[in-house]
Amino acid sequence: MADVARRAGVSIATVSRALRDVPGVSDATRLRIREIADELSYVVSPEASALARRETGRVAVVVPRIDIWFYATMLAHIERVLRGADLDVLIYQVDGEEQRKRFFEELPARRKVDAVVLIALPLLEREERRLDLLGVQVVVAGGRLHDYPHVEVDDHAVGLTAMRHLLELGHRRIAMIRTGDTAAAARSSELERSRAYYDALDEAGIPFREDYLVTMPFGTHAGAGAMDRLLALDEPPTAVFAFTDEVAISALRSLVRNGVEVPAGMSVVGVDDHPHADVVGLTTVTQHVQEQGRLSGEMAIRLVRGEPLDEATVVVPNQLIVRGTTAPPR
Amino acid sequence: MADVARRAGVSIATVSRALRDVPGVSDATRLRIREIADELSYVVSPEASALARRETGRVAVVVPRIDIWFYATMLAHIERVLRGADLDVLIYQVDGEEQRKRFFEELPARRKVDAVVLIALPLLEREERRLDLLGVQVVVAGGRLHDYPHVEVDDHAVGLTAMRHLLELGHRRIAMIRTGDTAAAARSSELERSRAYYDALDEAGIPFREDYLVTMPFGTHAGAGAMDRLLALDEPPTAVFAFTDEVAISALRSLVRNGVEVPAGMSVVGVDDHPHADVVGLTTVTQHVQEQGRLSGEMAIRLVRGEPLDEATVVVPNQLIVRGTTAPPR
Repeated sequence: MADVARRAGVSIATVSRALRDVPGVSDATRLRIREIADELSYVVSPEASALARRETGRVAVVVPRIDIWFYATMLAHIERVLRGADLDVLIYQVDGEEQRKRFFEELPARRKVDAVVLIALPLLEREERRLDLLGVQVVVAGGRLHDYPHVEVDDHAVGLTAMRHLLELGHRRIAMIRTGDTAAAARSSELERSRAYYDALDEAGIPFREDYLVTMPFGTHAGAGAMDRLLALDEPPTAVFAFTDEVAISALRSLVRNGVEVPAGMSVVGVDDHPHADVVGLTTVTQHVQEQGRLSGEMAIRLVRGEPLDEATVVVPNQLIVRGTTAPPR
Repeated sequence: MADVARRAGVSIATVSRALRDVPGVSDATRLRIREIADELSYVVSPEASALARRETGRVAVVVPRIDIWFYATMLAHIERVLRGADLDVLIYQVDGEEQRKRFFEELPARRKVDAVVLIALPLLEREERRLDLLGVQVVVAGGRLHDYPHVEVDDHAVGLTAMRHLLELGHRRIAMIRTGDTAAAARSSELERSRAYYDALDEAGIPFREDYLVTMPFGTHAGAGAMDRLLALDEPPTAVFAFTDEVAISALRSLVRNGVEVPAGMSVVGVDDHPHADVVGLTTVTQHVQEQGRLSGEMAIRLVRGEPLDEATVVVPNQLIVRGTTAPPR
């Protein structure tokens, strides 16, 4: 920078202002300084420039796991929106309770970002309180936390959409398969979708059966294991509401193995609209993950720029997509 | 920092050195400065501290798309390793030719990171040359580029593993399904796996048939579309080598729709060991994506620390995983 100042015959401060587009330098001077800087191939250090502005130009995205479709899709769309606004994206993957605990103890994002976007992270109350220490804007994507601005789907409504579809087809023996996390903080989507299961049965005057609600530990074969168990019952269900498409697709595998025709012998509905739901022709309830990602990214941009939010709570509507795995019971 | 220096009766430079663990400050002084800093809730600004060291503590990962399993899995494992070394991870998603062009024109990561990891990014030669302008270490994950250090799988060997499995089962009418990108730069994995298809046929003395090599545009239903076309031939193949598991899973869907029994009526082998390959029981060749991610992350760490690499080229072995979709021809 000193070289540029010497050649332009101005102070270093003036060069700095000119190159960072800060007011107080005449257009002619700014132009001359730019030309000299170009000639000398001088590039403004984004670090130094940001320090001067006390802004980082970065947003941190905190996500439980990148290699799971829901989180990856959310992250992909958040990144696209932030990049479009010239913001860099730092990622912090906090897989499981222990890593989450460490993240909130150390807060590695502290003083490094202008905002933090948390993707569907289950938090303990004491972890929530630590978030305030970041001293930056917080946006929650795909969930709700304390009173932070957030974008989410109404998981109770998602569950009702799935269940009402099965009930309208005439099913009365409807099971639910869900996966339970070992995390101390329960995932609200699981709770809310389960609540919808009870409520929809109740609404239809169907008594709840303990053996029709199967909870499996999270894993690739969770759906198949649960379906095996349901098929072994004296009176198996005629339809299954699977907590996610990944669970549903695994459950379909058990049906193939057991020679049960779909949808004639068993209806299956999932949640998400995972790309493989389309591949295997699975009926599902989409929660528009892409849209949730995009909207949370836009929320973060507004907060970073100090612009007011239209709404601090954005609920993305869900939508039933009927494909080939649901039909009236035989 | 001035407050801490005043209270401790030392210079600002000494406070700075003490808090950044730079040598030249006695243990007693360091301890006293730490205590006063704690009392005043003074936190070292990572930005300022890094500027002083001329290091950023960050690594950029450049990836075509986050919401596709291969890239997401690679990114997840790279992030985990870098985070373990206290390096922050910046992500740049460059989806398609236009975004890639823009990325290499603007080089938004310039002066912001100590190293760049490129995940399986197809590059034009002029883009490759721009990489040098970054002036930082470059690692290529899941591919090979110029003479940069890299971690990859041997895609020709991957293809041979898949083809030899089908040939050993006794198949002679073997088709290949691959997806073509519209990007100007061809993906080398596609080329190398195709070359293995020709070579394996050649090795077995089987003449190449134009109608058995189906290239589809990238998309969810690529595999199903290709399989539909193969089944419509006067003499359909008895086995198919699908370029990826995602293509294979979509192809299986076409077989179900067309009432073709698997593996009795058609054998299918994929590449990747996608989690859904396990779910649907697909025979596949794993390229250990998790391992490739981990090793590239470790390579980046060594380069950032100025440590020598054992090898600048790491080739991860492939492995056949036989599940339920391959058998001898009927």
